Amino acid sequence: MGYEIEAKAPVEDASIIESRVRQSGGELIGEKTQVDIYLSHPCRDMRGADEALRLRLEGGKCVVTFKGARMKGNLKSREELEFSVGEWEKALEVFSRLGFKVAARVCKVRREYRLLGASVAIDRVEGLGDFVEIEAPRTGTEMERSALVESVATMIGVDKSRLTTKSYVELLESRSSESSDSM
Amino acid sequence: MGYEIEAKAPVEDASIIESRVRQSGGELIGEKTQVDIYLSHPCRDMRGADEALRLRLEGGKCVVTFKGARMKGNLKSREELEFSVGEWEKALEVFSRLGFKVAARVCKVRREYRLLGASVAIDRVEGLGDFVEIEAPRTGTEMERSALVESVATMIGVDKSRLTTKSYVELLESRSSESSDSM
Repeated sequence: MGYEIEAKAPVEDASIIESRVRQSGGELIGEKTQVDIYLSHPCRDMRGADEALRLRLEGGKCVVTFKGARMKGNLKSREELEFSVGEWEKALEVFSRLGFKVAARVCKVRREYRLLGASVAIDRVEGLGDFVEIEAPRTGTEMERSALVESVATMIGVDKSRLTTKSYVELLESRSSESSDSM
Repeated sequence: MGYEIEAKAPVEDASIIESRVRQSGGELIGEKTQVDIYLSHPCRDMRGADEALRLRLEGGKCVVTFKGARMKGNLKSREELEFSVGEWEKALEVFSRLGFKVAARVCKVRREYRLLGASVAIDRVEGLGDFVEIEAPRTGTEMERSALVESVATMIGVDKSRLTTKSYVELLESRSSESSDSM
């Protein structure tokens, strides 16, 4: 059972952040396009329970992830259970036949760096803009891991106050409700 | 989307059937141990709808299958949707977190033959005994495929009247209700 500890922040100029990551010794792991499909449960308010079921498509591969409720704390910390799937279209069809519905899609191009053991992702999110997401490694105490995320943020010039534990789905939804408010 | 057409019959002496399969030109594909885990839906009577969700473990691999309702006809004909899974324990845990429960387990050793294009399986089912299961290939019309299953049955000396479209889960359940009746 794994727990992720992470936080993200919107950035105006991704290239500035990225060069700071490099200057701080960040090592490029790779660039990938990720399509995340979030499913709603046929009879349970996963949203209300702060749970999520996601199919992530990346480089022809698919991983299904169940995310548990976020725990209290400054940073996002939640249980993650995942398994890989061979034929994602079939998996999506099976979930659909079981009554799960596509609730949201998030498409992004992610450039991932390794910095002080943390994963630093420069994300270009469709319909949302550029973000940096910092995720602690899976080892160490929760306090150490949270402290590392904040240290990395400071190191690359991201103010702690800008960090959010919201998911891209939530950010996309609040953006769409803002734009309908202003209409 | 695939439809399976198959039928099975209990056999008293599997070795007699197996030698008839060989004499008829059956080619041994292999022997394998299969553990099938059937899950119940958190809010839907899949049983009542004649649907099933199964995780099949075989040789370290796992396939998840959704089976649609059996269609009318002499032989079992039902929709099957399936995908392979990398980490079955995690998949089972994710389904459990989504409210699916283990409804039944079927363990069997299967010796599979190919005969006239059909799959002929000699199954030793834990708690149930020996069976032969004949499944039509995925090509041809439904009528042709059904006729092939019946021809193969006749060829290996299995009387048509003994063929059943019941699943091993159903057979195990009717056996356990019989044994509690006789107590």
